[in-house]
Amino acid sequence: APVARELRCLCLENLDRIHPKYIQSVKVTSPGPYCDKTEVIASLKNGQDVCLNPASSLVKMILKTLLNKASTN
Amino acid sequence: APVARELRCLCLENLDRIHPKYIQSVKVTSPGPYCDKTEVIASLKNGQDVCLNPASSLVKMILKTLLNKASTN
Repeated sequence: APVARELRCLCLENLDRIHPKYIQSVKVTSPGPYCDKTEVIASLKNGQDVCLNPASSLVKMILKTLLNKASTN
Repeated sequence: APVARELRCLCLENLDRIHPKYIQSVKVTSPGPYCDKTEVIASLKNGQDVCLNPASSLVKMILKTLLNKASTN
């Protein structure tokens, strides 16, 4: 069986705002056996990880921006 | 200085298709010092990681689905 990376929810509180320029990557995790909530974790360019509100329009905007950059690679 | 997790691109080839039901999480990484491409890595419910084409409409659809589920949490 695959080894679980974390056995609990990782986000205790979510930010509603952050400037997209600080973001290196964004991970969206759907509810699963170890956490019953959707979690969005952004890794910042300074190495910090922050949780973002999955329901915020900011998250959609950031993901759109990241993916649109890819289309013009 | 923050420790880099990986010092190279992680995706050698990208899938264009996968059924969303197998996906536990999706990570979108923007180009940075260690990889000049946008990368999309999906972790599957069976523990496997697969790379998806960042320019595919599938990726947008999957992220939208994950986030829309969150809004109704």
